[in-house]
Amino acid sequence: MAGDLFVGVDIGGTKVAAGLVNASGEITSQVRVPMVTVSAEHGLSAVLSAIAKALPQDCRPIRGIGICAPGPLDPRSGMILNPPNLPCWRNFPLTSEVQKTYAVPVRVDNDANAAALAEARWGAARGCNNVFYATLGTGIGTGIVFDGKIFHGRTGAAGEGGHVSIDYRGPICACGKSGCIEAFASGTAIVKRVRERIAEGSKSLVTDLAGGNVESITGETVAKALAAGDALASEIMEESAEMISLWLSNMIDVLDPEIIVIGGGAATLYQPFFATIRQRVTALSINPRAHEIPIAPARYGADSGIAGGAALCT
Amino acid sequence: MAGDLFVGVDIGGTKVAAGLVNASGEITSQVRVPMVTVSAEHGLSAVLSAIAKALPQDCRPIRGIGICAPGPLDPRSGMILNPPNLPCWRNFPLTSEVQKTYAVPVRVDNDANAAALAEARWGAARGCNNVFYATLGTGIGTGIVFDGKIFHGRTGAAGEGGHVSIDYRGPICACGKSGCIEAFASGTAIVKRVRERIAEGSKSLVTDLAGGNVESITGETVAKALAAGDALASEIMEESAEMISLWLSNMIDVLDPEIIVIGGGAATLYQPFFATIRQRVTALSINPRAHEIPIAPARYGADSGIAGGAALCT
Repeated sequence: MAGDLFVGVDIGGTKVAAGLVNASGEITSQVRVPMVTVSAEHGLSAVLSAIAKALPQDCRPIRGIGICAPGPLDPRSGMILNPPNLPCWRNFPLTSEVQKTYAVPVRVDNDANAAALAEARWGAARGCNNVFYATLGTGIGTGIVFDGKIFHGRTGAAGEGGHVSIDYRGPICACGKSGCIEAFASGTAIVKRVRERIAEGSKSLVTDLAGGNVESITGETVAKALAAGDALASEIMEESAEMISLWLSNMIDVLDPEIIVIGGGAATLYQPFFATIRQRVTALSINPRAHEIPIAPARYGADSGIAGGAALCT
Repeated sequence: MAGDLFVGVDIGGTKVAAGLVNASGEITSQVRVPMVTVSAEHGLSAVLSAIAKALPQDCRPIRGIGICAPGPLDPRSGMILNPPNLPCWRNFPLTSEVQKTYAVPVRVDNDANAAALAEARWGAARGCNNVFYATLGTGIGTGIVFDGKIFHGRTGAAGEGGHVSIDYRGPICACGKSGCIEAFASGTAIVKRVRERIAEGSKSLVTDLAGGNVESITGETVAKALAAGDALASEIMEESAEMISLWLSNMIDVLDPEIIVIGGGAATLYQPFFATIRQRVTALSINPRAHEIPIAPARYGADSGIAGGAALCT
């Protein structure tokens, strides 16, 4: 209903963000508290404290609390399984722990799945039942919305499109597979490829922007060099855009979605290549109607975890 | 119901096969008639004639007619769109044409989608709601069953897993994309890679088995050489098995299915590598429970089109 309010929570490695989200998907207020990882109880306290601060000051009721948490997790049971970035929460029943304090529906999922749902409910994919969402950031996360719901697969592990390999002989990803798109085209991978080329002797404005220190190169450095027309930055981003295009064409050929939504911090790096990506995706896909599938920028940016959490309760 | 009967029809480039299928998925009888492609009407007549011959001799009623037809097609409208292998059927309303003669439900889909459903209803994936099916033959076709139904996507073009690329710099597939798994690991692609290696000077039993003529090499030749321990055949098949493993791990990471079913004529070539494929898929997938996903041989072989057609009516 129009007056419905949701609390969305985004648990990171160092902070917990929580916000109040209305029935239009607007984040009307948000708070941040430090995440504490010394024990499972301390972590839970941080989350409960963020929720308490995010609740409506005027005591209006909320419809639910949705939480983006580090995976792997079981979205059905709300159990956090074995998160490499949050070892204190091994086999931690987050949903039931939060429900001991708050007697409202509590949902848990990973951030890309939740953000995909937020885009389908309120954002760039509003009105679409079948959505492929990708967040291009330090990693590449993806979420699939099918029939208006997150597509979880058998155990909740579906939708890990960032670990679809586009090169069976490619660089080994952190996950162990060769040539995952994340290992080529995430913000981290782009910076790595630029650093490697400079270490091999390529001249680039990137070096100057990083004060001559290869280790100081970041996504922002590459973006600035790109905007200034730097040849190396352009070459790396052209390659990355071609890889992203091939990867998106793979996703279309498997899923045939109504829309593709692209978010994440590294998406700005790809901004100048969006028209090319659109054209290449259509050319590469075997789907005869691939040209009809929009590729849209996400509504939610850094706050996609809060919106996503809230969307889990809809 | 137990007494239900279905007619399954499989339209190929040169013949139409049709059969009677019972409620257990058994093909109790089947017929073949030549496919005629000189005009849309001749093609339709061939299909109607195959159906007529397949109908129960004792006039028992049938529940429906399901047809595997060359794509691209629209499974919702039953329209054949623009099949490269059957140009006389451009924009041909197959379902409604067949229904002019037979007043029963008529369904149309592509062969891999239909075969996937037959495996889910009656075959290796019986009892599973979420299935990834792959047929390794002259090409590589795939079908996704989700919630007990074929996953069609927006326009019916989903489930084209054979055109998922595993090499962005790889050989150009017939579809135009680089490095599709079909261009590496189908029966046709395996024979091509063996021929290339022999043309480059590799010694192999394959050459003798083909009477010294590289053009005479077939999948069977490679299979025989493999069985005899030939080094080149083993090397090519080991490579192919690794590619298939990576590709299946991609599919698991996107879909997290309950089971993977492998069919098709070239599956026998992979038979000696099934244990390796199972192990590599688990190692490569980011899914922490990938080892629980069975990889099973298909129930249906050359008659998967008839069973698949029938399954479309269930």
